Amino acid sequence: MTAAAGDARVENPATGDLSRLSLNTATTKSWTLAEAVDGTVRAGLGAIGLWRDRVAEAGLSEAAKLVADAGLRVSSLCRGGFLTTADDAAAKVALADNRAAIVEAATLGTSELIMVVGGLPAASAPGGPALAGGDRDLVAARRRVAMRIGDLVPFALEHGVRLVLEPLHPIFAADRAVISTLKQALDLAAPHPARAVGVVVDTYHVWWDPELQVQIARAGAEGRLAGYQVCDWTLPLAADPLLSRGYMGDGYVDFASIGRWVTAAAYTGDVEVEIFNQAIWDTPGDEVLAIMSDRYVRHVLPGLTR
Amino acid sequence: MTAAAGDARVENPATGDLSRLSLNTATTKSWTLAEAVDGTVRAGLGAIGLWRDRVAEAGLSEAAKLVADAGLRVSSLCRGGFLTTADDAAAKVALADNRAAIVEAATLGTSELIMVVGGLPAASAPGGPALAGGDRDLVAARRRVAMRIGDLVPFALEHGVRLVLEPLHPIFAADRAVISTLKQALDLAAPHPARAVGVVVDTYHVWWDPELQVQIARAGAEGRLAGYQVCDWTLPLAADPLLSRGYMGDGYVDFASIGRWVTAAAYTGDVEVEIFNQAIWDTPGDEVLAIMSDRYVRHVLPGLTR
Repeated sequence: MTAAAGDARVENPATGDLSRLSLNTATTKSWTLAEAVDGTVRAGLGAIGLWRDRVAEAGLSEAAKLVADAGLRVSSLCRGGFLTTADDAAAKVALADNRAAIVEAATLGTSELIMVVGGLPAASAPGGPALAGGDRDLVAARRRVAMRIGDLVPFALEHGVRLVLEPLHPIFAADRAVISTLKQALDLAAPHPARAVGVVVDTYHVWWDPELQVQIARAGAEGRLAGYQVCDWTLPLAADPLLSRGYMGDGYVDFASIGRWVTAAAYTGDVEVEIFNQAIWDTPGDEVLAIMSDRYVRHVLPGLTR
Repeated sequence: MTAAAGDARVENPATGDLSRLSLNTATTKSWTLAEAVDGTVRAGLGAIGLWRDRVAEAGLSEAAKLVADAGLRVSSLCRGGFLTTADDAAAKVALADNRAAIVEAATLGTSELIMVVGGLPAASAPGGPALAGGDRDLVAARRRVAMRIGDLVPFALEHGVRLVLEPLHPIFAADRAVISTLKQALDLAAPHPARAVGVVVDTYHVWWDPELQVQIARAGAEGRLAGYQVCDWTLPLAADPLLSRGYMGDGYVDFASIGRWVTAAAYTGDVEVEIFNQAIWDTPGDEVLAIMSDRYVRHVLPGLTR
């Protein structure tokens, strides 16, 4: 039940259909974009999910060419967001950065820009001056996110890119994302067209939610289910909870049930594996791809097959 | 923003009304029940929240006499619950233990028995055999909780004790409580009379919830708001997240807003301070009471005053 990579043997080489499986480049952190593209092709996957840092290192045009030449789909670009600041000047910078991310997504050939919306402004300044009461105002931070999503929608529509709101586990509500549930993400998306604002289901963040089945169905019915990301909730938590994710099957997530709900919501898109975990980052990339492919076939794929 | 007790000075001695403030005995872990009762009286608080381990050490009749003689209200007894097992024999043992807790609550003079319902059965057996698929079935675990609450209701009613469902932060969904939101707790309570099944709002567990205001209002309207427990969400998390709680004001919880919501829901009961934190446990009890009283007056009480 731990995420120690040493325990994660490939018990059977993956023999299932990997065409919907996507490597999120954060899972193989030590790889350059070119290495990640090559590794993804070598492992027989159909898609890749890109982080902006890897794209920037390669150069945007070169990155787009690399992926296109390899014949891979880009399942998503990670990430825009960080829209909670109460400071007007900082908000302008954040909006400009999100517009740049929208252009990057369009250039890379993906319609889906994952949005991690940011935490309480106070949490961005540890060791800073004493907090004013307003800095703990979660309701106001959420209101600013709603407003700034609205600001970005026209630009996103112009570029054929969808802002994909990602609810993060409530463990990150203070310091990373004030969107904590799928229902909340869908409520924020509701004023906008489905091709402008969508949602992503990341099992690590939402597996515990009593409303999960209902809200996944709603996301499907509204045409907003823009992505499915998988990894496991393992215990004990890592010292940095951000790095506490595990391979599918190493923890407590019920992939069979969640997969059925996603499939019932008519999701037929790619399935990204996005794992932040130091032990996995220390494992050679090809080995990581072999393990995640095996785990995908054994734990995730059965739920996706009607 | 950390929970280090050394940082937690009493900046102003508490001069506000402490009549609704209650010491949960888990906050002063090193104190016996007699010491906790004496300390609570010395600090001028109106109530005490009891854990069963301290009561058992003192003996049930002696504990009841101690608290009554001191003129303190018992705001709650912690705790019943742990009802998720899939094993029939283990379920019988759990139900018997909950009936014992109901009798203890009645004997101690409190109507409110806090229920921590338990996590996934699989999480109770770390290092055990490989998990069967069913052990990750959160939906089934929640169904068993609903059923067993129903089993306990008649006995609770007979004894004038309310089963108070506590939603725990989703960080504990795997290993401690499959009730993760106030809405879910209220939905589970709904089939039963309000004097049989209630809910408690613990800020540490629910501060992040986008539905919090709405569900607190609902709890009030349904007559089920049975307790208000306060402590803060601090970062970084302690190595054991269970011990990661801080004094009010040391973290990210917006006590002013939540206090207004609780007050708008017509809650006029006691306000328990329940902090699990090694640094606070290592601080002399009288000092802890002085700090928590000061923080209560500065951060919590303003929200409770209409």
